[in-house]
Amino acid sequence: MPYIRIEITREGVTQEQKKQLIAGATELMVRVLDKDPATTFVVIDEVDLDNWGVGGQPVAEWRREQAAARSG
Amino acid sequence: MPYIRIEITREGVTQEQKKQLIAGATELMVRVLDKDPATTFVVIDEVDLDNWGVGGQPVAEWRREQAAARSG
Amino acid sequence: MPYIRIEITREGVTQEQKKQLIAGATELMVRVLDKDPATTFVVIDEVDLDNWGVGGQPVAEWRREQAAARSG
Amino acid sequence: MPYIRIEITREGVTQEQKKQLIAGATELMVRVLDKDPATTFVVIDEVDLDNWGVGGQPVAEWRREQAAARSG
Amino acid sequence: MPYIRIEITREGVTQEQKKQLIAGATELMVRVLDKDPATTFVVIDEVDLDNWGVGGQPVAEWRREQAAARSG
Amino acid sequence: MPYIRIEITREGVTQEQKKQLIAGATELMVRVLDKDPATTFVVIDEVDLDNWGVGGQPVAEWRREQAAARSG
Repeated sequence: MPYIRIEITREGVTQEQKKQLIAGATELMVRVLDKDPATTFVVIDEVDLDNWGVGGQPVAEWRREQAAARSG
Repeated sequence: MPYIRIEITREGVTQEQKKQLIAGATELMVRVLDKDPATTFVVIDEVDLDNWGVGGQPVAEWRREQAAARSG
Repeated sequence: MPYIRIEITREGVTQEQKKQLIAGATELMVRVLDKDPATTFVVIDEVDLDNWGVGGQPVAEWRREQAAARSG
Repeated sequence: MPYIRIEITREGVTQEQKKQLIAGATELMVRVLDKDPATTFVVIDEVDLDNWGVGGQPVAEWRREQAAARSG
Repeated sequence: MPYIRIEITREGVTQEQKKQLIAGATELMVRVLDKDPATTFVVIDEVDLDNWGVGGQPVAEWRREQAAARSG
Repeated sequence: MPYIRIEITREGVTQEQKKQLIAGATELMVRVLDKDPATTFVVIDEVDLDNWGVGGQPVAEWRREQAAARSG
C-alpha cells in the first residue's frame, strides 16, 4: 500500500531513469517492509528550476553562487 | 477547510470531468463532515504516464503485462 | 491508479465517517473516470487545529472572529 | 530542514515573484524557527485553473459567480 | 535537491527499518540521478489504518475481505 | 486560493511560533501575489525526527556527525 512521491528538479531525467527510480523505490519497499509491488505507487514530480528554492534562492542562482564560492 | 488532492495519470481528463470531480469531492465533504464549500479546496494533479509507477514499472508497461497475463 | 489525499482539521472525525469518505472518494473516481477501486488509494490526513491557518490566523482564532463579526 | 510547498493557481506568476516567494518563505523559517537556509527547500506548484476547485466549482467559474453576486 | 515522501500505513515500522528506508531512498537518488545526499530529503509519513483506503474500504477491512476471498 | 504546506521536524515548535508561521506565510502571499487571506490555507506538518532523513541518515544521526566533523 505504499505511496512514494519523488520530487526532483526538471533537468532532463530520461524515461530509462524514471523506470529505474520506479523499480528502485518499489524494490526498497519490498526489501525493507515486505510490501506488495502491485499496491505500491511511485509518483515522480518534476519541478521547474525557477520553482525550486534552496538557501533562499532559486536553485540555478544558488548553484552559481556555490560554484563561485568554491572557485573563489 | 478541507484540502483535497486528486492525483491521476494524465490521460485526457476533460474539463467537464474535472468539474464533476470538483463538485463530487466538495459534495462529499458537505455530506459527510458538514464542511463549508466556500472554504473547501480541491486540487487535481495530472501526472504523466512515465512518471507514475505501480508493480515496480511505469503504468503503461504494467498495463501491457497485466493485459498479456489475462489473455495469456 | 488514483491517489486521493483528504486533509481536514482534527476535530473528532469518527471511524464511520472515515469509511464514508473513503467509499465516497473511491465511488467518485469510478463514476467520473471509470477507475478501478482496487488500485485507488484514499489517504485521510487529520491536522491539529493549531497547525491549520486561514485568514492569517490559526483556524480556532479565525472562527471566533468570524462568529464575533456575524453576531457583531 | 524545512520543506515548504506553495500551491497556487497558474496565473502568470513572474520569475521575480517566484524569487520573492522563495526568499520570503526561507526568511520566515530563519526568523521564526532559526532554521538554516542551506537546508530549507521551497517548492512552488502552479496548478491550472481548471484543476483547482473552490465552492464546488472550478476557480474561474466560482470567481465569475462571486463577482456577479457582488455586483448583483 | 530531491524530496522523497514515503507514505505507509502505521503498522509498527521500526527505527531500524526507517533508517534503511532513508538510506535506500537516498542511495537510489545518488545511483540513478547522481544527486548530492546532503541536499536529499526523505520524509516518512505513517498513516493510521483507519485513515488509508483501498478498494473503497479502510485497509483493514479490505484485507479481511481479500483473505476471505482467497480462502473462499 | 494558495495552499501552503510547511513540513518541519517535530522539535517543540510552540503555539506562538505556529501563529507566526501562519501569519508570515499568509502575509507573503498577500504582499507578493495580492492573494486574499480569507482563501489562503497554511498547513504545518510536524514530522518525527526518526521519520526525516538527510544525507542518507535520520536527522539526529546526521546532526551528530556534522557536529563531530566540525569539532573534528
